[in-house]
Amino acid sequence: MTTGARPRRIAVDAMGGDHAPEAPVLAALAVSRSTDIEVLLCGDEASIGEVLGRTGPPGGGLRVIHAPTRIAAEEDPRRALERRDSSLARALQAVATGEAEGLVSAGNTGALVLLAATRLGRLPGVARVALGAVYPTRPRPHNPDPFALIVDAGANLSCRPEHLVEFAALGSAYARVVSRVDRPTVGLLNVGEEPEKGDALLREAHRLLRAEPSLAFAGNVEGRHVPLGAVDVVVCPGILGNVVLKLLESVGELVLGLGEEVFRQRPAWRLGQRLLAGGLRRLSRVMDYRSYGGAPVLGLERVVIKAHGRSSSHALENAIKLAAKAVRDDLIGATSCALAAIRRGQP
Amino acid sequence: MTTGARPRRIAVDAMGGDHAPEAPVLAALAVSRSTDIEVLLCGDEASIGEVLGRTGPPGGGLRVIHAPTRIAAEEDPRRALERRDSSLARALQAVATGEAEGLVSAGNTGALVLLAATRLGRLPGVARVALGAVYPTRPRPHNPDPFALIVDAGANLSCRPEHLVEFAALGSAYARVVSRVDRPTVGLLNVGEEPEKGDALLREAHRLLRAEPSLAFAGNVEGRHVPLGAVDVVVCPGILGNVVLKLLESVGELVLGLGEEVFRQRPAWRLGQRLLAGGLRRLSRVMDYRSYGGAPVLGLERVVIKAHGRSSSHALENAIKLAAKAVRDDLIGATSCALAAIRRGQP
Repeated sequence: MTTGARPRRIAVDAMGGDHAPEAPVLAALAVSRSTDIEVLLCGDEASIGEVLGRTGPPGGGLRVIHAPTRIAAEEDPRRALERRDSSLARALQAVATGEAEGLVSAGNTGALVLLAATRLGRLPGVARVALGAVYPTRPRPHNPDPFALIVDAGANLSCRPEHLVEFAALGSAYARVVSRVDRPTVGLLNVGEEPEKGDALLREAHRLLRAEPSLAFAGNVEGRHVPLGAVDVVVCPGILGNVVLKLLESVGELVLGLGEEVFRQRPAWRLGQRLLAGGLRRLSRVMDYRSYGGAPVLGLERVVIKAHGRSSSHALENAIKLAAKAVRDDLIGATSCALAAIRRGQP
Repeated sequence: MTTGARPRRIAVDAMGGDHAPEAPVLAALAVSRSTDIEVLLCGDEASIGEVLGRTGPPGGGLRVIHAPTRIAAEEDPRRALERRDSSLARALQAVATGEAEGLVSAGNTGALVLLAATRLGRLPGVARVALGAVYPTRPRPHNPDPFALIVDAGANLSCRPEHLVEFAALGSAYARVVSRVDRPTVGLLNVGEEPEKGDALLREAHRLLRAEPSLAFAGNVEGRHVPLGAVDVVVCPGILGNVVLKLLESVGELVLGLGEEVFRQRPAWRLGQRLLAGGLRRLSRVMDYRSYGGAPVLGLERVVIKAHGRSSSHALENAIKLAAKAVRDDLIGATSCALAAIRRGQP
């Protein structure tokens, strides 16, 4: 039996996200019925039981681990760190002890990053745990994955140049494993393509990235390159990544909203719009990255996937499958190799 | 005779932009034929004459001012500053001496901002000249203008908190005059809506903005609020503004590109797409902010409009009209008042 055939065990924070516990429980249920992934649902037993009571029986691989409290969406992460009885703390404990191999949470992002970094430990050489996020791009000829990755998406609000190199290594390893691109291209998000563009941070980061042989550094990329999928991995400080990502979240709504205004101007367009209504809805879903499944927390000893706070059960189902895939394909091993490669390059 | 009826005089950099001198010359020609705006075309006489020779006669208000050299698109602004014989330097001279009342250039942005700040002078109390930029938003009930403003769009790569307050005052004055909104709302672009979000710069800027009674500060806005037009003026450091703006430039292409993939999936959708082809092209143009006319350089003693480097003659025509409108409606007076108001609020 190869290791690939062994069922994966994923801990799910049943109380995290806007639609918890409903969405995480239904997602776990769907996964347990349709795959051999084992799901450990961590949260308030009564609330979870209430949702499960309304549905049919789960598949064999579903188990509930009781945790009496939950971390609120806007709770201060440092306060959340003190509590050992929250659904997230319990899910992290399951991963730390090896009960589970990966974790999914749609809850408080800051708390997830801080607690995961504290409880699971960072890979050797990682100075900063980073938040990656996938977003849809225009189709790329060399990369079959319709999604590209941006790192850091908001975990690190102030960065030093060497952190951006680390983000590049973490992102490259993720793209290699999850998007299955052999040598993912990396771009530094900046105000212009020339090496001397940007502030002191971006100029020095550019110099370090260019000097790093283990990365396929494609140079600076501008904002317009991001949606066009000019590179597989976009690297930037967390404030920039957070703003870019949230902006991409609502541009579909902008374009389709403007479209409604435009399309009513002519009878043929109004008819076309009626015929295309289902296609426009489908397009809207393609643009809606809440449904993609999740953003990896990178640099940890274990696989941790952050699902969007507004995740539906379908999105959480994808997130659980993504976590299982990252475990199966040894994301952590690939990440260790990428980090070792950039450490070798350093003086 | 009211001052509003006096013809406006706008200096145009005939050699700036990807399509110069063709686009600026054709734009000046169109304006001179269809309005009473007087245009001073600054650039190489022979090149301008060559374009004019191919067209019919200009209207009465067109004049050519010879300038033998041009500033290249990627030329170092500090080097460009040394030359007095460039088309931009000559156009700025016309504005500085009062020959013209406003200026339009589609050339090198860095050079435009540096030369304009040096040659035209800043308004009292302005520490940093800022680049504003307009972008299309979802329709806003209280604001008839389909465009919102973002400041700074890339002139200031590192900022202090008080600069962001200044950008808010500059942007509010512009929105009041150009969008004709009585009390434009201002949002600080950040990673979350709570006052304590962001790094030290954004937290302190939030505190200062909230304490400023002359501004309609609506608090922090996230990336997703930008395309939705949550506020009339988005305030941010230049790197963030530059990335956001360039990203918005290409999202239309992304959405319509993904649409093409989606719409071919069903026969009814394919038919709908054919009927809607013209509407989709129109939508694409609405999303393309290159055609809007231009971005104001704010904080100067004179009206200066930066047109997109890729501006068509139509976009430059809009930019010239925008400059004339800003002169007529006394943007500079409104800006002085807004700056005086925030100075009064300071200890």
